[in-house]
Amino acid sequence: MVTSWPKNFPGLGTGAQRIADNITAMSDGKLEVKLFAAGELVPALQVFDAVSSGTADLYHSAPYYFQGKSKALNFFSTVPFGLTASELNGWINYAGGQELWDEVTQQFGFRSFHAGNTGTQMGGWYTRKIESLDDFNGFKIRMPGLGGEVLRRLGAAVVNLPAGEIFPALQSGAIDGTEWVGPWNDLALGVYKVAKFYHYPGFHEPGPGLDLSINNAVWEGLSSSEQAIVRSAAQAENNLMHAEYQANNASSLDVLLNGNDVTLVRFSDDVLDELGRVSQEVVQEVADSDPMAKKVYESFVAFRKRAVPWSNIAEHAVMRARSRVFGT
Amino acid sequence: MVTSWPKNFPGLGTGAQRIADNITAMSDGKLEVKLFAAGELVPALQVFDAVSSGTADLYHSAPYYFQGKSKALNFFSTVPFGLTASELNGWINYAGGQELWDEVTQQFGFRSFHAGNTGTQMGGWYTRKIESLDDFNGFKIRMPGLGGEVLRRLGAAVVNLPAGEIFPALQSGAIDGTEWVGPWNDLALGVYKVAKFYHYPGFHEPGPGLDLSINNAVWEGLSSSEQAIVRSAAQAENNLMHAEYQANNASSLDVLLNGNDVTLVRFSDDVLDELGRVSQEVVQEVADSDPMAKKVYESFVAFRKRAVPWSNIAEHAVMRARSRVFGT
Repeated sequence: MVTSWPKNFPGLGTGAQRIADNITAMSDGKLEVKLFAAGELVPALQVFDAVSSGTADLYHSAPYYFQGKSKALNFFSTVPFGLTASELNGWINYAGGQELWDEVTQQFGFRSFHAGNTGTQMGGWYTRKIESLDDFNGFKIRMPGLGGEVLRRLGAAVVNLPAGEIFPALQSGAIDGTEWVGPWNDLALGVYKVAKFYHYPGFHEPGPGLDLSINNAVWEGLSSSEQAIVRSAAQAENNLMHAEYQANNASSLDVLLNGNDVTLVRFSDDVLDELGRVSQEVVQEVADSDPMAKKVYESFVAFRKRAVPWSNIAEHAVMRARSRVFGT
Repeated sequence: MVTSWPKNFPGLGTGAQRIADNITAMSDGKLEVKLFAAGELVPALQVFDAVSSGTADLYHSAPYYFQGKSKALNFFSTVPFGLTASELNGWINYAGGQELWDEVTQQFGFRSFHAGNTGTQMGGWYTRKIESLDDFNGFKIRMPGLGGEVLRRLGAAVVNLPAGEIFPALQSGAIDGTEWVGPWNDLALGVYKVAKFYHYPGFHEPGPGLDLSINNAVWEGLSSSEQAIVRSAAQAENNLMHAEYQANNASSLDVLLNGNDVTLVRFSDDVLDELGRVSQEVVQEVADSDPMAKKVYESFVAFRKRAVPWSNIAEHAVMRARSRVFGT
């Protein structure tokens, strides 16, 4: 199994390791899965090609990293103003998502299983507050993907930088802000030491899903019990990784806000409304770029149209009530 | 495997069946799990004793049904103003919940795994709107558990009735309202035909967890790969059941609100604040009732104290932004 993560990267890398270990354990060593971190066998972003060609049997990564192969893959991770983790899970497993995903990946000779989620990410660490739309103008932000494209349209100078270059770039003023993951991974990256304004919500990544993908020939060579083991290992990890992010983001946020001089900044309603409008424009263009992306988009949007009203009266409403009662 | 659910009851019963089938499939039939619906081998609420005594090997049920055995079990399902599904999962798996759960169930000779969640439930179907606290006075409501106790303290006449008696009781006016699950199961129960006001949020059940429990001697007789299979089947179902509820609640809500003359009613802030205050009082009394409940409560509350601020800036904030943008 090749992965896009550094060795034992908390959450993503440790989750991939749990999948490998669990398949090995459940099959009593008959399917012995050896994990290769990014760069050990192939570079982080060549795992897709490695499994497509059969160089590797499995990979663990994020579907949207490979939108260059098929724009449709964005929807199986996340898009700006898209689905929360459990909604994504609902769409994939019980509302047609998996069948569409299979259709996309079969073009490349493998199949993907939903296998992990970071939960809602944060909006980024900025050296100054974003208080109005004008503040994005000329703002130099490290933000990859569709979220970066949204900010670019609002006037930001969007760049991409690998993890190791983010801290020095913020320190030197080469960039004014960066997006990363959430409190747990962000605390480890250390950028709160040089960019004090922690913005939310992460409108661009409401619940990014990860995938375990397996080469077709390898899959077809497995017995039905072995297939059940691989599928269940992905499902079990989908459950565990989100749980691990929930617990560790909560405790890391507490650390960041106590004694580290970090200020939480909620994007104002004016800013969010415009981020929403531009996000829908950007996602619509992704859909219009090819027929498969369009087909997936239509299923995704039809699901979201039903899921948002339900979430509003369920989790959203109960969280709102708790906030009042607990005064947070 | 005995269960507390009618045969193939959507969500709960079908989820239990998936666990049974998956253990059988992953073990290639070596562990063949046969499911017994409620009443087939033992009645719904005797599954705890059946697995404790070894009459059955496994059960699938909800921990809070057995609060008569140990008050601490409430926290592993849900309590009023408690945790959402993914927060509960975080506490159990990565913040000490499982270790405490093991301590509770070992007194009874079995161990429990978190194995399914309905997601946030609804506040109930009422024949008239609850607009102020006074409206609870003398209101006859079918609501079991701690939520029922909260309403009783607000002046409601709280009763418990099995599923089959709810519809006729509402129709005859013997009760004025009932709590059930969420749109998917509620649509099937049909009470929307006689009680038109659908209240939210389900303050009493923000994300009720279910359990797969296995007799100690059976567990110890399994090989380590078989133990990994049972544990993973529970984790996989924890992932799938919540996904299934997400998808089907969303589509069923749409059916209920279109053409069925159902009115959604949000509990007012005054009502929610008082429900919150009384809920904390009721849950505190559960904690004070025995030392084990107190120990579990303290871990649960310490986790919630960190989890709520995180959820507020993550899922809660992104849901709020989406509602604005999509106008729902």
